[in-house]
Amino acid sequence: MALIVQKYGGTSVGSIARIRAVASQVAALRAQGHGVAVVVSAMGDSTDRLLDLARGLTPDPPARELDALLATGEMVSTALLATALATIGCPARSYNALQLPLETTGLHGRARITGIEAGTLEADLASGIVPVVAGFQGRAPDGSITTIGRGGSDTTAVALAVALSADECQILTDVDGVFTTDPRVVPDARRLDRISFEEMLELAGQGSRVLHLRCVEFAARYGVKLRVLSSFRPGPGTLICEEDPAVEAPVVSGIAFNRDEAQITASGLPDKPGTAHGILQPLANAGIEVDMIVAGAPREGSVDMSFTVHRDDFARALAMVRATVARFAGVEVRGDDRVAKLAIVGSGMRSQPGVAARLFETLGREGVNVRLVSTSEIKVAVLVDEPALEPAVRALHSAFGLAGTG
Amino acid sequence: MALIVQKYGGTSVGSIARIRAVASQVAALRAQGHGVAVVVSAMGDSTDRLLDLARGLTPDPPARELDALLATGEMVSTALLATALATIGCPARSYNALQLPLETTGLHGRARITGIEAGTLEADLASGIVPVVAGFQGRAPDGSITTIGRGGSDTTAVALAVALSADECQILTDVDGVFTTDPRVVPDARRLDRISFEEMLELAGQGSRVLHLRCVEFAARYGVKLRVLSSFRPGPGTLICEEDPAVEAPVVSGIAFNRDEAQITASGLPDKPGTAHGILQPLANAGIEVDMIVAGAPREGSVDMSFTVHRDDFARALAMVRATVARFAGVEVRGDDRVAKLAIVGSGMRSQPGVAARLFETLGREGVNVRLVSTSEIKVAVLVDEPALEPAVRALHSAFGLAGTG
Repeated sequence: MALIVQKYGGTSVGSIARIRAVASQVAALRAQGHGVAVVVSAMGDSTDRLLDLARGLTPDPPARELDALLATGEMVSTALLATALATIGCPARSYNALQLPLETTGLHGRARITGIEAGTLEADLASGIVPVVAGFQGRAPDGSITTIGRGGSDTTAVALAVALSADECQILTDVDGVFTTDPRVVPDARRLDRISFEEMLELAGQGSRVLHLRCVEFAARYGVKLRVLSSFRPGPGTLICEEDPAVEAPVVSGIAFNRDEAQITASGLPDKPGTAHGILQPLANAGIEVDMIVAGAPREGSVDMSFTVHRDDFARALAMVRATVARFAGVEVRGDDRVAKLAIVGSGMRSQPGVAARLFETLGREGVNVRLVSTSEIKVAVLVDEPALEPAVRALHSAFGLAGTG
Repeated sequence: MALIVQKYGGTSVGSIARIRAVASQVAALRAQGHGVAVVVSAMGDSTDRLLDLARGLTPDPPARELDALLATGEMVSTALLATALATIGCPARSYNALQLPLETTGLHGRARITGIEAGTLEADLASGIVPVVAGFQGRAPDGSITTIGRGGSDTTAVALAVALSADECQILTDVDGVFTTDPRVVPDARRLDRISFEEMLELAGQGSRVLHLRCVEFAARYGVKLRVLSSFRPGPGTLICEEDPAVEAPVVSGIAFNRDEAQITASGLPDKPGTAHGILQPLANAGIEVDMIVAGAPREGSVDMSFTVHRDDFARALAMVRATVARFAGVEVRGDDRVAKLAIVGSGMRSQPGVAARLFETLGREGVNVRLVSTSEIKVAVLVDEPALEPAVRALHSAFGLAGTG
């Protein structure tokens, strides 16, 4: 007799047949006696289709109107899922963000959720009705429709779980859960039964695409138990929750990686305060995110600095850095966009020294050159040449004992 | 410096190119100094596409969810038109029914408009912003989305014109205005510069498809000047307004016709009170609309009765009448669905006797057999064999001098 919020993504509701299948799953959960509220994304490629319409008019549609347009995609899915549920005898009602309302800030395209009026939904649940809520959208203070950006519907689901004090927020997707690493790269990667918010945050931050960083942050902040599971196959999925102090955390829980990296290095910079700031500030002003910043020890009065940017920003960032250092004599700027980042993540690192050493030992044995390193309490991330990425991930997955049935 | 509400139908906004064209027209009107509010229908076949999705789930979707689904079609057009307007420098904002709100009764699929909160729209108009409002939809008292049925967006436009005290409500469509009759049947049919509400009501009621009856009724009740004009070609269109007492009304303004007719005749009914009621009540209970009822003079204690129904209801209605009269001996029931109705309409009939006589004379000369007649103060309608319809319309169009430049 739990209260569960389920979120189904675009591929899960990508066709009429899929919507029927989702309705059966929801109805089955309700038939077990649980209260169920559902959040849905837009069907499959419908968001792209709407975007194409707007871009047929202008490459840069007004943000308010683009949001109003895109939000219709989720409204369509909610009405269809509520219809499918009613058809199999499960009472349901669709809601868009204006109807609840689900309040957000007014920043179109990436609004923040500020509150959900849960009264209507609670009344539905009390009457055995399944509310089906449009994800990804909200109502701005001025009554406009907003969208809440990347990871949107997952975040809607977590916010709904908070507002309803739900027992669990289930993210139904096209994978079976969170894995020790991407099974396409490491065939014996293993589904994790559970993982802590902290570890999941690091994995998401380092390139795991299962859940968006923002949704995990939101769940962690409010202590909402998240479960990632497949909408295509039955299975327990992965529970993401507070660390269980009674269980010893594994040293390494998973390996995330990311190919969208590019590295920029400036050598021979004057060893003076403000040099790094002088290079990074123009990038920040241009909205370019900088990751893995390393400044080497000064040598003969000069210093080297290296950092990574998203591959899409590489050319622009490189040109900006070159422009910035033009006033210094003898500075060399190099860039490389055939690099990739990998990170091992595990709460057990806190109490287990030597994890980084084992990582370097393993990579060294594989002949993998480490270009940059950055660490946190529960993570070691390294930048490697892109061709070395997959062998490195496989070697580490095996070295840290992640394979098998755990 | 007038305030004008414009309504663009589905074909007028059926593609990105069409939406651009509509935006130019709206912007041109605004550039003349007018305040403009726009109501739009869903793009071309998008409503059919949404219906197909719902019917892929069930032949009979829940009315609340079907309305929520269909209403997204108009939301898409509003966002796109507002985008197109902004792109050419005309500030615009899209609104759906929940946002205004546009309040209706709770009868899904055919809700009645009960009120429009015009404050936001007035503020926009005062700031030179063009509000773009989703037609066809409303908000039920319980916050659900409703649709307002056939002729929906036209009715939304009239309601908006009432709420804003607009000077004129323009219905932009794919014809140049209201014609003396359908130009596809009578090539020299003439566009009317103006026509009275009363005449337009009769024409709409008798089969003219230019405007929906309900929209004309609404405009007549509130004295909103309606103008029908083409969204594809420039032109003054047709103004529908109160009769101008200073101008002598034409005897006949137009000829409407309708092929969706079927006739049912029961002969030899007992000449007793309640016989007609006994036949018609079951039809009314089944939601079958009955038109052109004629009961002949009694003959030898029995009476004949004849009426028309929509062709779609013909088989069902015929079976019901047969079942009803089964208890009377000697009653014969005949049905014919190859009939059509035509009607001449004109305010001048009131003061001009002999119009019906001229109609019968013309039809007689053409050898057209009149099967039923019904009249009002400003209309004479006759039922004829379907093959005779077009020759009859052409002969009457000429006999009443409707052709030429009028």
